[in-house]
Amino acid sequence: MKTKRILIDHGSGGLATKELIDELFRPLLSNPWLNRMEDSALIQAPEGKKIAFTTDSYVIDPIFFPGGDIGSLSMHGTINDLAMQGAEPAALSLGLILEEGLLMDELYKIALSLQKVSQQTGIPIVTADTKVVPKGKGDKIFINTSGIGYVKEGIELGSDLAVKGDAVIVSGTIGDHGVAIMGTRAGLGLDITIKSDTAPLHELTHFLLEKFGSSIKCFRDPTRGGLATVLSEIATASQVEIIIEEAAIPIKPQVQSVCDLLGLDPLYLANEGKLIAIVDGSVAKDVLHAMHQTELGKDAALIGTIHHSNKQRTVLQTAIGGKRLLEPLSGEPLPRIC
Amino acid sequence: MKTKRILIDHGSGGLATKELIDELFRPLLSNPWLNRMEDSALIQAPEGKKIAFTTDSYVIDPIFFPGGDIGSLSMHGTINDLAMQGAEPAALSLGLILEEGLLMDELYKIALSLQKVSQQTGIPIVTADTKVVPKGKGDKIFINTSGIGYVKEGIELGSDLAVKGDAVIVSGTIGDHGVAIMGTRAGLGLDITIKSDTAPLHELTHFLLEKFGSSIKCFRDPTRGGLATVLSEIATASQVEIIIEEAAIPIKPQVQSVCDLLGLDPLYLANEGKLIAIVDGSVAKDVLHAMHQTELGKDAALIGTIHHSNKQRTVLQTAIGGKRLLEPLSGEPLPRIC
Repeated sequence: MKTKRILIDHGSGGLATKELIDELFRPLLSNPWLNRMEDSALIQAPEGKKIAFTTDSYVIDPIFFPGGDIGSLSMHGTINDLAMQGAEPAALSLGLILEEGLLMDELYKIALSLQKVSQQTGIPIVTADTKVVPKGKGDKIFINTSGIGYVKEGIELGSDLAVKGDAVIVSGTIGDHGVAIMGTRAGLGLDITIKSDTAPLHELTHFLLEKFGSSIKCFRDPTRGGLATVLSEIATASQVEIIIEEAAIPIKPQVQSVCDLLGLDPLYLANEGKLIAIVDGSVAKDVLHAMHQTELGKDAALIGTIHHSNKQRTVLQTAIGGKRLLEPLSGEPLPRIC
Repeated sequence: MKTKRILIDHGSGGLATKELIDELFRPLLSNPWLNRMEDSALIQAPEGKKIAFTTDSYVIDPIFFPGGDIGSLSMHGTINDLAMQGAEPAALSLGLILEEGLLMDELYKIALSLQKVSQQTGIPIVTADTKVVPKGKGDKIFINTSGIGYVKEGIELGSDLAVKGDAVIVSGTIGDHGVAIMGTRAGLGLDITIKSDTAPLHELTHFLLEKFGSSIKCFRDPTRGGLATVLSEIATASQVEIIIEEAAIPIKPQVQSVCDLLGLDPLYLANEGKLIAIVDGSVAKDVLHAMHQTELGKDAALIGTIHHSNKQRTVLQTAIGGKRLLEPLSGEPLPRIC
C-alpha cells in the first residue's frame, strides 16, 4: 500500500477504495463471489433446506488479544450464531468501519486472520463493504459479519424446547475470553496467561446433531452475559426451572483466581468458543462422552438439569451447599468484550 | 425507556439490552423471525432460485437529513444492492453500533424510520445485534444492514455483460443525495432545498426484468463515487468504451448550481434512489417509456451507448462539443455521504 495509515479517501468508493481492496484484501480473501465485485453475491440455494441468517458487530477493545484478534473473533462469532441453530455455515459478509489513521499493518494483520479462519473452516467471505470515519469518530476498526447457512430438514433447535428431565451440558471451561480481555486492559497489573477461547463451533454442533439428532433440544453460545444470562433466557423461553451444580462447572483455576481477586463472577463472563447444549436426559452421558472425543469439547461437563416448576428461573446449587438465583446480567462488568 | 440516553449497559447483552429491545425496537419491528430472539433467523429456502447476499455499513453524517435518515438509508441501500442483481429482497439484518450518550429520542426516530420502510416494502428485519461504544469512540450511530434475496432462474445481470450497441439509461436526476447532504453541513451558508433521493428500487427492477427479461444486461446504483465511477467500472468489467452525452444527463438546476458554486462535479456525487441500466439497444426506447410510467423512473433518460474499442473507458461528450474522459473517483469530495 502507498500509505502507512488509512485515509478518509479509502472510504470514497473510488480509486483509493479499489486500491485498498485490490492490494490488501483481494489477495488474501479471493473467491469467485467476492471477486465478482458486484452489489451482492449469488449463491445456489440448496433444495429442501432452511436458510439461517444472522448478524453481529464486533467492537472489541483491544483489537489484538491473547488467542485472537477482532478478525478471527468476528468470523468465529457469526459462524457460531449459525451453528447454534443447527446450520452449516455457507457464506459470510464483511462490513468494515475503519477509523482514519488506522495503521495499514494492523489492518493487514486482521485481514490475514480473516483469511486464516476462512481457509481453516472453508467458509468464504462472499460480499464486503468498507467505510472510513474521521479520526476520533470511531475506534480503529469495527467489524460487522453477517452470515448465511443451511439447516437440514428435521433439525429443530430452540431456547424454548427444554423440558423436564433434560440435561445441561457445557462444552468446556468458562470465562476464558472475558479474563483474557481483562488481562490486556491497562492498569490492572495482573500477570494473566489465559487466552481467549475464540473458536468456530460448527463442526462440533454438526457432529453432535449427526449423532444425536432430535435428542438435542438447544444449542446456545454464552457470549456477552455469559453462562448465567443464557441459562436464564432458556429458563424463560422454555418456562422451566434450571438447576445447576456450581461444583460441576468447569473453570480454569487462574480464571477463578482473577475473578476472586477482582470480585467478578465467571458465570457472567463472555465466552467465544463454548456452547451450552440442552439434551434429552437419556442421552446426556453419551453426548458428554462424544464431546470428550473432540478437541473443542474435551473439557465438557454435565452441569445441571431441567425441572418443571411454576418458577422460570435458574438456581445454582453452590459448592458449600447453598442456593443462589442466577439472574440475567445487569450492568456491564467489562465493556467492549466482543 | 428509563433513561434519556444510551448507556454502556445497553450493550451488555444482559438486562439493559433486553429492555432496549423489548421497549424500543420490538414494538416497532416485530415479526416472527425477530421475535424468536435466537442466534439466527430461519427462513424457508425457495426452490430453484439463487440466493443473493449483500452487506453495507452506513456512517452518514448527519444522521437526519432532508428526505431521510440513517435508518431509511440503511434499508434502502441494502434493498438496492439486492435489486441490482435482479433479486427480490427477502430479509434484512440490522447491526447497530451506538455511541454512549446517543439520545433515546433520536434512536426512536430511527427505529420508526426502519419500521416505515419495512412496512412500505414488506421486507422484514429478521435478525439484529446492538453494540454500544463509549462516548468519543463512535459517532452517535452506525448501522450495518445485510440482506438476502432470491433470484429467479434465467436472470443474469452483471457489470461485465455490456456489449457494443447496448444503451445506457439512468432512472432519474443525479446528485440529489450528495447535494442534500452537503446542504446540511455547517458553514456553507447555502439555502439548499434539494432532498435526498433515498428510495427502494426493487419494484422498479422487478418491473423491468418482468417486461424486458434478458434484454437487460446490468443494473447498478450509483452511490459513493457517483455515475462516473460506476460507468468506469462497467467499462472495465465489460471491456468496452462507453460514450455518454452530457446534455442528456438529467440534473436538477439547483443541483447543478450548487455544484458550479462549490466546484463539484455532479457525475461524482452519490445517489441513493437511482439506477443505471445497460440494456440491449433494440429495446432502449421501450425501457425508457416503461420507466417513465413509474414514480421512481419518471425522469429516466437515455444518456449513452456502448462501443467496441480497445480502450476500456467512459467518454463524456460535453454539451459544448468537447470530449472528456470520466475516470473513477479519486479523492473524497464529501466524506460520510452514506
